[in-house]
Amino acid sequence: MSHTSVTDYSKIRLIGFDADDTLWRNSVYFVQAEKRLADLLSPWLSAETLHSRLVATETDNMPWYGYGVMAYTLSLIETAARESHYEIPAKDIERILEIGKWMLGHPVELYDGVLQILPVLEQHYPLVIVTKGDMLDQERKLRKSGLMPYFHHIEIVSEKNEDNYRDLLTRLKVRPEEFLMVGNSLKSDIAPVLAVGGQAVHIITDDIWEYERSDKPALPYREISRIDELLPILGLPGD
Amino acid sequence: MSHTSVTDYSKIRLIGFDADDTLWRNSVYFVQAEKRLADLLSPWLSAETLHSRLVATETDNMPWYGYGVMAYTLSLIETAARESHYEIPAKDIERILEIGKWMLGHPVELYDGVLQILPVLEQHYPLVIVTKGDMLDQERKLRKSGLMPYFHHIEIVSEKNEDNYRDLLTRLKVRPEEFLMVGNSLKSDIAPVLAVGGQAVHIITDDIWEYERSDKPALPYREISRIDELLPILGLPGD
Repeated sequence: MSHTSVTDYSKIRLIGFDADDTLWRNSVYFVQAEKRLADLLSPWLSAETLHSRLVATETDNMPWYGYGVMAYTLSLIETAARESHYEIPAKDIERILEIGKWMLGHPVELYDGVLQILPVLEQHYPLVIVTKGDMLDQERKLRKSGLMPYFHHIEIVSEKNEDNYRDLLTRLKVRPEEFLMVGNSLKSDIAPVLAVGGQAVHIITDDIWEYERSDKPALPYREISRIDELLPILGLPGD
Repeated sequence: MSHTSVTDYSKIRLIGFDADDTLWRNSVYFVQAEKRLADLLSPWLSAETLHSRLVATETDNMPWYGYGVMAYTLSLIETAARESHYEIPAKDIERILEIGKWMLGHPVELYDGVLQILPVLEQHYPLVIVTKGDMLDQERKLRKSGLMPYFHHIEIVSEKNEDNYRDLLTRLKVRPEEFLMVGNSLKSDIAPVLAVGGQAVHIITDDIWEYERSDKPALPYREISRIDELLPILGLPGD
């Protein structure tokens, strides 16, 4: 396949990692939150109908709220009020707020392999995180993850688009062809990086949020299914 | 007064500006939002009682939600549910969500003097914005303000504390004594900057949010009551 054609990683001088659903589990908590909302709203609509209504609300709210747990909680509440025909009791609205706080408070679960590869990679490359969403929540997850010492720089942006990647590389004084981005989202981690002339490795995962789905980019990039496949790709020994 | 003793600005090589309630109005929208909530909750409690309950909810939620309109909207909803003894109808919850969207959508109202001083200042100093809160909302206000061309760098942080100011100055390669911060909040704009060895000008305004109130720092800084008093302080001609 052209999009997985062999690429040359000898020029790489900086590696960027997505965080949510790349280094640690994230979208599973959104799925669980939606399931709890479906239970609360079961008198009014099915879980399937709720799902499509919730995605529509989130999409409408995206320009206002952006990404993250607070944005999601507000969309859960809006959907609950409207889809219950305004019959949902305030006690259940409070339960939805509690679901949001649970999402902010859960422990960070790293993917298998993360703690094996980062200490090896950081011996050879400066590593950065490029992530989006609530700044406070991302900073908290990063602290809880214990991964801060491996990263040279943390970049939290409102949107992972070409402009923001270009800005980051300019500030870090790295040319696009020297940058390799690793992540699970074609839309946020792969396509915009390839478009600015960078390289990319796509980790294929089941944990992919609806909003992040996108067509495969035409430019070449690598696909892997586990993060520890990164080491052999870069010519480094795994264990 | 010791805290307004004359300071030497000849060394200044970078000027930082707070944004909310320094360049443009901000807390007035929070006050108006609270007034609308008070109307909705008038069957259950007075505006005064609501105020203290809301501040308590915001303070409790601060470690989870941080600053900004989404955080505030979630606290409005939580307070409304609890203080109405869970009697508030879901239609009113939807109205609170609309209050939040109104806050995100209002036009940006610059303070008098801002458009006069920035073109003069940027001839003499690189200018940066240092602000906190929702990244997306801050970026949107900045775009709407038309002020982007005057600023060399925009720094959006989760908290304006000593560590974050120190990091910023290191990244921008400016020594603390070469940095002047201008803002309306003693807690966020003045005290931490003085503590890291920087200089500060406090703009005294009525628009100050409860959470930003703080004691006067002991280290010397200047006080002004209008932003255009900055020019004479820096030895630049005003008009």
